[in-house]
Amino acid sequence: MNEFELIGRHFARAPRHGDVKLGVGDDAAIVAPAPGVEYAVSVDMLVEGRHFAAGTNPENLGHKALAVNLSDMAAMGAVPRFALLAGALPVADDAWLSAFMRGFDALAERYDVELIGGDTTRGPRNLCVTVIGEVPAGQAITRAGAAAGDTIYVSGRVGDAALGLASRGGRIRIDDAMIGELLQRLERPEPRVALGIALRGIASAALDVSDGIVGDLAHILDASHVGAVVDVAGMPASDVLRDLLGGPQRELALACLLAGGDDYELCFTAPAATRRQIDAIAQSLGLPITAIGAITQTPGLVVRDERGDPMRELPRAFDHFR
Amino acid sequence: MNEFELIGRHFARAPRHGDVKLGVGDDAAIVAPAPGVEYAVSVDMLVEGRHFAAGTNPENLGHKALAVNLSDMAAMGAVPRFALLAGALPVADDAWLSAFMRGFDALAERYDVELIGGDTTRGPRNLCVTVIGEVPAGQAITRAGAAAGDTIYVSGRVGDAALGLASRGGRIRIDDAMIGELLQRLERPEPRVALGIALRGIASAALDVSDGIVGDLAHILDASHVGAVVDVAGMPASDVLRDLLGGPQRELALACLLAGGDDYELCFTAPAATRRQIDAIAQSLGLPITAIGAITQTPGLVVRDERGDPMRELPRAFDHFR
Repeated sequence: MNEFELIGRHFARAPRHGDVKLGVGDDAAIVAPAPGVEYAVSVDMLVEGRHFAAGTNPENLGHKALAVNLSDMAAMGAVPRFALLAGALPVADDAWLSAFMRGFDALAERYDVELIGGDTTRGPRNLCVTVIGEVPAGQAITRAGAAAGDTIYVSGRVGDAALGLASRGGRIRIDDAMIGELLQRLERPEPRVALGIALRGIASAALDVSDGIVGDLAHILDASHVGAVVDVAGMPASDVLRDLLGGPQRELALACLLAGGDDYELCFTAPAATRRQIDAIAQSLGLPITAIGAITQTPGLVVRDERGDPMRELPRAFDHFR
Repeated sequence: MNEFELIGRHFARAPRHGDVKLGVGDDAAIVAPAPGVEYAVSVDMLVEGRHFAAGTNPENLGHKALAVNLSDMAAMGAVPRFALLAGALPVADDAWLSAFMRGFDALAERYDVELIGGDTTRGPRNLCVTVIGEVPAGQAITRAGAAAGDTIYVSGRVGDAALGLASRGGRIRIDDAMIGELLQRLERPEPRVALGIALRGIASAALDVSDGIVGDLAHILDASHVGAVVDVAGMPASDVLRDLLGGPQRELALACLLAGGDDYELCFTAPAATRRQIDAIAQSLGLPITAIGAITQTPGLVVRDERGDPMRELPRAFDHFR
């Protein structure tokens, strides 16, 4: 199968949305922006051996390659609309690509995202996805709006994906009954798109937790020129992670909770007066939203342990160049 | 230097254009489309060992990584506006990245293209660039409009980049006086952006010659459901390539001319009645535009050699999965 047959078989499809004037198969795709919208654009690169292990289930990988970008759209309050997929593959493996696209397409369909372009080449396995989303002009949620007194929230639970990864790597033993759910969080993260959209006009700042809550929250503090106090006791964690915090593997559990990446939950800030609105959003989405701390005028991030004492040393966020 | 310092040092910059509402450094960039424009979007992935050799001059590579995408914009008649750069690098090499960004930024500045986002990670060297361009609604030039009787044109010269590559690989000896220019074509291709814009409303179909004129022209024929006859004698080639066609290395020279990639010239079709307009464009841009053949109703591509005889076998276009 040659490159063009490969593209034709797996990527080509008729444009579905009226604003896609030209899809896969030309030098570029053409989209027609609707009046009054701004476009959010993000790109994420997943590298074998770095973001995923060799031999990773390709259907899960197809899901995740798109999910991490949809999560960026969620963090902006944008509706994801279009995706471009560039991929390097060691061989033109039809079965692998079919499975990858099954995962990619299933998630794309759920969020009504249209694949409009891409590029395929041979090389060490690398998937690079660009996503374009729509947001009403001026309503994107950035990292820069947090103000002293705002409450800090996080959706869902944090630490699960990192705990799943630690278990798979043999660094910790997890009960068989629990491991499936943790690995699901790691391999098939659910982007919080509906939450991001609901937070427009309410959240003062937001981002997605891809590198761990401590490191990610620091980006909001930097961009907003504020500080924060958060409490370990209040962080939403799975029962298994909470149990580990009280045992001999406390240190690893703390690292998962505070610096574990890959959860793709939203961390956001909002004025205290919006508390009821946020509770209503949580209820309507069936998604827990937990207050974990507050924004302060004083710069810096203070994390208080379960006894309320500031932690001297914080686990580091994952950094691709360390 | 950690990942965020790296991003901050090399990629972060204040938004320059009024329609960039948010640039590098958030979960996504935000751009505000102007009324009446459509966006052209393309992505290209360059892999070390595939598209460029290990040890390639990083400044040239920075130029080329952007140039190949600007060339896609040119092929659509779009004005390139925004770029996103995702890169995997084996190490956080500050000097390498500085040089790469020097090449990237210099070209971006010449075309007033703004870097609005990206991603960096560790991994086998891989550069993935997404470009967004603007085109007045309905005026994008696709591959699908060629009609029987249209003339086929190509800009500049074809075969130079492939000949430079063949020389560097030791497959052919080129005079020292000539090699510099050929390598320049290979390493620092000039995207034909002004030509693409000038061809709006004139060209019936267009694409850029990235894989070789024979293979690329076939995409226009497929998309337009037509055939073509082109003449080797009429193809714009450098003197050195033309000389080689008459010598013992004719086969390699023909392969460079017909199936050599990486020239990034525009190949386009236009009704015969537009000939004068096209000549005027060539003159105003100081860029040769050569008629190389004609579109036919009969499907298939006929290439005639210098004696006017149809060639039985055509050199194949470069295919990343062969």
